[in-house]
Amino acid sequence: MSFRATVLTLYPEMFPGHLGLSLAGRAMEAGTWALEAVQIRDFAADRHRTVDDTPAGGGAGMVMRADILARAIDHASPEGDPRPRILMSPRGKPLTQERVRELAAGPGAVILCGRFEGVDQRVIDARALEEVSIGDFILSGGEPAALVLLDAVVRLLPGVMGNEVSGDEESFENGLLEHPHYTRPQEFEGRAIPEVLTSGNHAKIAAWRREQAERLTRARRPDLLGAKD
Amino acid sequence: MSFRATVLTLYPEMFPGHLGLSLAGRAMEAGTWALEAVQIRDFAADRHRTVDDTPAGGGAGMVMRADILARAIDHASPEGDPRPRILMSPRGKPLTQERVRELAAGPGAVILCGRFEGVDQRVIDARALEEVSIGDFILSGGEPAALVLLDAVVRLLPGVMGNEVSGDEESFENGLLEHPHYTRPQEFEGRAIPEVLTSGNHAKIAAWRREQAERLTRARRPDLLGAKD
Repeated sequence: MSFRATVLTLYPEMFPGHLGLSLAGRAMEAGTWALEAVQIRDFAADRHRTVDDTPAGGGAGMVMRADILARAIDHASPEGDPRPRILMSPRGKPLTQERVRELAAGPGAVILCGRFEGVDQRVIDARALEEVSIGDFILSGGEPAALVLLDAVVRLLPGVMGNEVSGDEESFENGLLEHPHYTRPQEFEGRAIPEVLTSGNHAKIAAWRREQAERLTRARRPDLLGAKD
Repeated sequence: MSFRATVLTLYPEMFPGHLGLSLAGRAMEAGTWALEAVQIRDFAADRHRTVDDTPAGGGAGMVMRADILARAIDHASPEGDPRPRILMSPRGKPLTQERVRELAAGPGAVILCGRFEGVDQRVIDARALEEVSIGDFILSGGEPAALVLLDAVVRLLPGVMGNEVSGDEESFENGLLEHPHYTRPQEFEGRAIPEVLTSGNHAKIAAWRREQAERLTRARRPDLLGAKD
């Protein structure tokens, strides 16, 4: 069974974007996953295909209408669809590698991309949308965030990464930032590869890498260490 | 003077991607910003255009070579180029809206997209690359992250957003998650717009929104409140 993503968006032409290339693109061609982009405007009720209206209570910008979004969601994800329904939103729960792993182990995802000032709260409540944020910054819309979320998920699907081992050692998989990497040439602009790495002593190398990862995490992301305690 | 982005990548065909559409695409056509994607392989020294090698000390995956990346960086960003040099990396400093604003106020950015296991540490040190992370998850490479960073920056460039006011009220601009939004219809599946929002009392509406934003931030992101104290 393949992973099935449905994206609800005002810009279906943004998909598959970079997900149609490289690893994700090849996996899509191989049938490991599928992506459908649904135009939200197709569910508007007027001939101008309006999807938004002014915010209740006043203020700048426009708000996406609950009734139109509900129709789009119900079409893309009828009752009984086991896929989680996600709203990309800076107000959401920050995306973690753990949630990425859960999603990759599941049947897929229905992803709603907000635009303008936001989405009417009532459709978030009525359709139990899971609000997910990719970070503490503001994007033009949910589309770039949806592409990032799917990129993170797709690389974990079975057979997508050439070297399955590769995923395990990376940042966050063990709660630490990754240790520094080195490769040939042995010397670059007067800088040598740290001696321990060319010693051939595997236990020493593993200890050095662990120590470097801990040092880096302590310096840059002490919050990650706290989270593991 | 326009904002000039240069992206160093193994997948130049991933750019401009969604940045060529919608607001960012129109701003690019209008000359508000420019994007150049540079193929790192053009700086390889062998006829197979190899850019990576096995990690010193062993382990899975491949590491991007310092010498080849240095040549690509020096070509894209010669001495005197005032633009910051950024490496998209999950080991980096988490991207914030504050850093996005700084970048948008500057001349542009040179952005290196890592792939494989990572990048030789010596080119990070020798070229003083600023490591930036968009979140605690692993992507197939730096490209989706670079697209997100540029999307966040471009929307802040002068004239890109139709309604300049719009940026100010949004999540993180005031250290809080944004309050819930509502718009017509007045009733949706038995759910009404909160009465205060249709009261016409602007002071009450502002107070309600602030209270909702604080409540939401406390519930979902207490870390943001701590950060402001």
